[in-house]
Amino acid sequence: MKLDEKGLLIVLSGPSGVGKGTVREALFKMEGHDLVYSVSMTTREPRAGEVNGREYFFVTREEFEQKIKDGKMLEYAEFVNNYYGTPLDKVEEQLKLGKEVVLEIEVQGAMQVKEKMKDAIFIFIAPPSIEALKNRLHSRGTESLEAIKERCEKAKREIGLAYMYDYIVVNDEVSNAADKIIAIIRAEHAKTERTIDKYKKLLEVK
Amino acid sequence: MKLDEKGLLIVLSGPSGVGKGTVREALFKMEGHDLVYSVSMTTREPRAGEVNGREYFFVTREEFEQKIKDGKMLEYAEFVNNYYGTPLDKVEEQLKLGKEVVLEIEVQGAMQVKEKMKDAIFIFIAPPSIEALKNRLHSRGTESLEAIKERCEKAKREIGLAYMYDYIVVNDEVSNAADKIIAIIRAEHAKTERTIDKYKKLLEVK
Repeated sequence: MKLDEKGLLIVLSGPSGVGKGTVREALFKMEGHDLVYSVSMTTREPRAGEVNGREYFFVTREEFEQKIKDGKMLEYAEFVNNYYGTPLDKVEEQLKLGKEVVLEIEVQGAMQVKEKMKDAIFIFIAPPSIEALKNRLHSRGTESLEAIKERCEKAKREIGLAYMYDYIVVNDEVSNAADKIIAIIRAEHAKTERTIDKYKKLLEVK
Repeated sequence: MKLDEKGLLIVLSGPSGVGKGTVREALFKMEGHDLVYSVSMTTREPRAGEVNGREYFFVTREEFEQKIKDGKMLEYAEFVNNYYGTPLDKVEEQLKLGKEVVLEIEVQGAMQVKEKMKDAIFIFIAPPSIEALKNRLHSRGTESLEAIKERCEKAKREIGLAYMYDYIVVNDEVSNAADKIIAIIRAEHAKTERTIDKYKKLLEVK
């Protein structure tokens, strides 16, 4: 399927409530891909049923801060007194193995990745409308009206950053969005700048 | 399927013998696309069974040269004393209707399109190897060894121009190549620069 050998770093991002997680799950259920999900690292306590290395890598605050200091976090942020982030070494390991590494992260984190990994593919998962986003947040039923209003304001600011991404995929239907992401990955592998060297080599050999 | 409304101009090109025509036919048989094929114009005589406007638009030498003079040919070339080319007006008409217009043309013609239509998507259909190309030309059985050798030399020069294209699709298997082209078209429609304006409008309306 792929023309080149190195894996791609695929950054899925977008406002909270847009359904990034659902799109990512649908993507991983699709056939004919070679995707791996980058497990995040956090300082929060594991919840019942969560396994270290599956949902998250659970570390202490000291360990996390040491990683930041050593430049070993690809991106990170602090929410409600806990760190969340992507350890760089795991990502690089998988890319070298030719895997497509998928990050599903907040807009703030995606902007950090953009500074460090120029070659990554940035996909903005967008709501079909602000109304749709609001409805989705309401239907979760876990947040106050005030919190939902705040999230919508934040989403609008984040949508204002969509121009920083390579692609915009509107999450009108989850399977459609996942299909588009697969198409983007295939197309990216066929890009001339990624294939030309390998292709020239191929022709010399014969 | 598409996020934006204007159609894309898709230029399929590559060395003679690479199987451009077969890939294009497979592409048009696929479902879920909105592709139209741009019929070329020529000054050569119609062959038995050929219909004006289907295989080619058949015109006189004078008509063709007038079109060149008026800047109404998107690309053209002369082979064995006959002109072949793509009339610009038909292409523009279809693009405005939101169709994806597919040109299947020689490398020389693709270079002309590149100068005129910066926004077109250039896809280089490449042989898996020079050997494969040679074998294909042999199996046609219509050309002398000398002619095949010449074609291979020309193909090598044309492959040297692959870096001018946006994508390289190796024609290892026709269905695979057609799949990749569909993926490229979907991905191109999701590109931020094509979608951002429409997307912003969508969010303002609500």
